Amino acid sequence: MKYDAVIIGSGIGGYPAASYLASRGLKVAVIEEHLVGGECTNYGCVPSKALYHIAESVKAIEKIGGRAEYNWTNMLEWAKGIVSEAKRGIEYLLKSKGVDIYYGKGVVKNPREVKVVLEGEVIELKANKVLLAVGTDPADLPNMRFDKQGIISNREALYLSEKPERIIIIGGGVVGVELANIYSALGIDATIIEVMEHILPFTDKDIALAVKMHLSNRGVKVLEKTTAIRAEKLSNGKYCVELSTGERLEVDKVVVAVGRKPKTNDIGLEAIGVGVDEKGFIKVDERLETNIAGIHAAGDVVGGPLLAHKALLESISAAMYIAGEEGFKVNYRLIPLTIFSGLEVSSVGLTERELQRMNIKYVRVKVPLSFLSAVKIKGHRNAFAKVLLNEAFNEVYGIHIVAPSASEVISAYMPLYLGKVAFKEASHTPYPHLTVSESLRDLAEYIVGEPVHFLKK
Amino acid sequence: MKYDAVIIGSGIGGYPAASYLASRGLKVAVIEEHLVGGECTNYGCVPSKALYHIAESVKAIEKIGGRAEYNWTNMLEWAKGIVSEAKRGIEYLLKSKGVDIYYGKGVVKNPREVKVVLEGEVIELKANKVLLAVGTDPADLPNMRFDKQGIISNREALYLSEKPERIIIIGGGVVGVELANIYSALGIDATIIEVMEHILPFTDKDIALAVKMHLSNRGVKVLEKTTAIRAEKLSNGKYCVELSTGERLEVDKVVVAVGRKPKTNDIGLEAIGVGVDEKGFIKVDERLETNIAGIHAAGDVVGGPLLAHKALLESISAAMYIAGEEGFKVNYRLIPLTIFSGLEVSSVGLTERELQRMNIKYVRVKVPLSFLSAVKIKGHRNAFAKVLLNEAFNEVYGIHIVAPSASEVISAYMPLYLGKVAFKEASHTPYPHLTVSESLRDLAEYIVGEPVHFLKK
Repeated sequence: MKYDAVIIGSGIGGYPAASYLASRGLKVAVIEEHLVGGECTNYGCVPSKALYHIAESVKAIEKIGGRAEYNWTNMLEWAKGIVSEAKRGIEYLLKSKGVDIYYGKGVVKNPREVKVVLEGEVIELKANKVLLAVGTDPADLPNMRFDKQGIISNREALYLSEKPERIIIIGGGVVGVELANIYSALGIDATIIEVMEHILPFTDKDIALAVKMHLSNRGVKVLEKTTAIRAEKLSNGKYCVELSTGERLEVDKVVVAVGRKPKTNDIGLEAIGVGVDEKGFIKVDERLETNIAGIHAAGDVVGGPLLAHKALLESISAAMYIAGEEGFKVNYRLIPLTIFSGLEVSSVGLTERELQRMNIKYVRVKVPLSFLSAVKIKGHRNAFAKVLLNEAFNEVYGIHIVAPSASEVISAYMPLYLGKVAFKEASHTPYPHLTVSESLRDLAEYIVGEPVHFLKK
Repeated sequence: MKYDAVIIGSGIGGYPAASYLASRGLKVAVIEEHLVGGECTNYGCVPSKALYHIAESVKAIEKIGGRAEYNWTNMLEWAKGIVSEAKRGIEYLLKSKGVDIYYGKGVVKNPREVKVVLEGEVIELKANKVLLAVGTDPADLPNMRFDKQGIISNREALYLSEKPERIIIIGGGVVGVELANIYSALGIDATIIEVMEHILPFTDKDIALAVKMHLSNRGVKVLEKTTAIRAEKLSNGKYCVELSTGERLEVDKVVVAVGRKPKTNDIGLEAIGVGVDEKGFIKVDERLETNIAGIHAAGDVVGGPLLAHKALLESISAAMYIAGEEGFKVNYRLIPLTIFSGLEVSSVGLTERELQRMNIKYVRVKVPLSFLSAVKIKGHRNAFAKVLLNEAFNEVYGIHIVAPSASEVISAYMPLYLGKVAFKEASHTPYPHLTVSESLRDLAEYIVGEPVHFLKK
C-alpha cells in the first residue's frame, strides 16, 4: 500500500498528526504495536486522573468525618471503562477520517518504506513521509528489574487487581508523587524514596516542600536523599526493600518511577542513519524533521518535557510541515508542567533554580493562597502562588501555582506569562468568585498596587 | 469620631474598599449590622461552595458503585467552620489595617454624618466620604412569606439542622439550580418550580436544557412554566405546596429563591435625596457616586448582576475615586456568570437570546466537550462550549462553557473574549492535559482550521 504519510505510534504524539493530515486529504496510515492512544491514554494521564478524581473525593468525605465505602475492583473497572472509551474515541476519530490503522510493530526500512511486523507476518507500506511517534518505555534500575508482578512501572501501578497494604515508590518525580497521593488517599501505606535533596528535584525547594507537607499529612512517608539498594522477593510473595539508610521495608509492591527511555532501538533507525542523542531520543530540527529528509518525529521520543500537551502540539506542528504548509514552531517556553497531587502544582516558565543557574537576576513575588475560600474548602493551607519577574517588573520569567485546581488555573495565568495581559489589567479583571483562578487578580493587584486581601508588602 | 471614609456594609461590596482606603492611609470606619463578610461569606458563595464540594464528592463515590457515609451535622459544622474562618479573615484584615468596625445599623444622616444604631444606642460618625454597600435581602412572595422555619431563603437553606427528605425550590435561577444540585447529590428529593419557559431563564435554552438534563439525571424534578400558588403548613410540620398544574406536593421545606431586594428603605436615603431606581437599587454614575456628592455606592445595592466578583471590583473602583485617585471603570461587559451545578455553567459576554433581541447577526460555534477525558471522568456527557462571533470571526460576542470545572476554566477563556489572545494563537498554545481548560485549544483550532479531535465542520 502506498501512503502520503505513515505514522508509527498512535499515542498523543501520533494520532493528532494522522487526524490533521487526513483532514487535509492525505492518505494516512498509523501503525500501533500495542494499544491505540499510547501511554497517556492507556497507562498515564487518563487512568491516573480517573483514580485521582476518586481519591480526592474520598478525602473530601473523610474531611467531614465521613467515610467512603467502595469496592476496589468496581473502581478499577470504572477507570478501565474511561480508558477504553478514550481509546475507542481515538480509533473512531481516525477511522472516520479515513486513516488506516495497522496493528503491529512499525520498522523503518528506508525513508520511503515502513514495515509492519505482526507475529512474523510483514506488511510493507510505501510512504511519502514518515512520522516517528513511538514514545517511551518506563525505565527500571539495574538492581530492580521490572518483573510485572511485584516490581512494576506506571503500567501496572494503576491497574493493581487487589488493593495492596503497603507500597514503596522509587523516584519522587511527577509520577511518583501523583501515585503516592492517590495511593495514600485510597488508604494504602505509601513510601516515596528520592535520591536527590528533595522530591520533584527539577523544581524549587519551596514547591517541593509544600507538596511533601501535603503528602506527609496524608500519611505518605517521604524519604529524601535516600537510595533503594535492592528489592528481594520474599517467600510470602511480598518484597523486602533495603534502603541506603539501612532500613528494610516489607511491601506488597515496588513501583519504579525513575524515568523513561525512548523506544528507538529496534525500529530500523540505525540502519538508515536517523540521528539520536546519547539517551536514544531522536534528534529533530525546529520543523520536527530528523537528519533524514522526509522522516519527522514528535512526542516523547524526541525528548524534552515528556508531557502530553507538548506531544500533541508537536504532532500537529509536524503534520503541518509534512503537509508542506506554513507550520508553526512549538513554543517550548510556554509548556506548562502540571502535577495532579491534591495540592496541585502548575508551572510555566523558569524556576528560581534555573534562573540562578543562568545567573539571571529576578524578583520573587510570592503570596499565600490560603486566604481564598476555594482553597480553605479544599483544605490545602500551604497553597501559594509565586511569580518570578525581572527587576523592572515588565517581564515574567516564571509562574508557579501550588494550590488545588492549579492544573486548570494555570491556563488563565498563561497570558500574563506571555505578556498578553498586563498585571494592571488583570488587577481590574473580575475573575469569578469563588474559584482558585481569582487568585490571579489578587496576585496582579499585589504586584501593581494595593492588595485588598493582604497586608502591604 | 471623624473619618475620611465611612463604609456601610462589610460584605464584598464594602470590605475591599475599606482595606484599600486604609492602605492608602485614610481613616476608615466600617459599619456592619449583622455579620462581617455579608451575604457572600455567610449565606452565599462560601457555605454553598463548601457543601457543593462535599456534594460532588459524594456523587463521585456513587459513580463507582460506592457510598459516602457521613453525618449531616458534622458536615454542617465543617461548613460553618469554613464560613467562620473566612469571616474572621476579613475581620483580621480590616483590623490589621487599622479600620474601625462598628456593629449596628448604619443610617446616613447627611452627606457628612452617619449614625450607628445598636439596640437603641446611637453613635455618630463624621465622614468625609460615604460608601453604601448594604447589599440585598432575599425576596419572598406575597403568597409565600418567609417564616424562617419551613418557608425559607438561601440564608436558612444552607444551614438546615436536620436533613430533610423533600424540598421544593421556588425559582429556577442560579440559587435554585445550585441548591437543587447540592440537595439531590446529598440524597434529598428536590423539586424546582420555574415560572418561565425554562430554568435559568436569562440564558440560552441549550444551556438551560443541558443543566436540566443533568439535574434530572440526579433525580431533581424540574417543573417549568409552572407556578406555586400557595404553601400551607400542615399539622405534621410539613408544608403542602399547590402548583398551577393542580399538583400538590408535601415537603419538609419550601425554599423561595425568586430574587433579591436592595436594603435601601431604612438607611436614611430618602431624607437626603439619594436617588434609587423603581426597585430601590441605588443609582450611581460611572464613578460609582450617587447623585449626592461624596456618597458612593457599590455591590449588589447598585443593581446589575448580583455577583461577588462584580461587587469586589466596584468596591475597589469606588475606593479609588473616594481616595481622589485616577480610578478604573468597571468593565461590565466582562463580568462572568458562573453556576456551580456539577455540570457547571460559565458565561462571559452576550447570549444568543440577547444578540437576537439586539438584532445583531452572529455566528454560533458549538462543540461538544464529551471528547475530553476530564469530562468523561467527571461524567457529564452533555458538556459543550459555545462561542458567539461576528461574521468576520474577529469579534467575540460571548463565550459559554457548560462543563465540569467551567467556573475555573472561564478565566482562561476571558482573554479570547477580550481579543487579547487570538484564536490562531490559542490553537497553538499547550494548555495542559488532562484538564477542561485544554478545550480552549480545541475550540480555537475548530474555529481557525483543522480540528484534530473532531470531524470537519
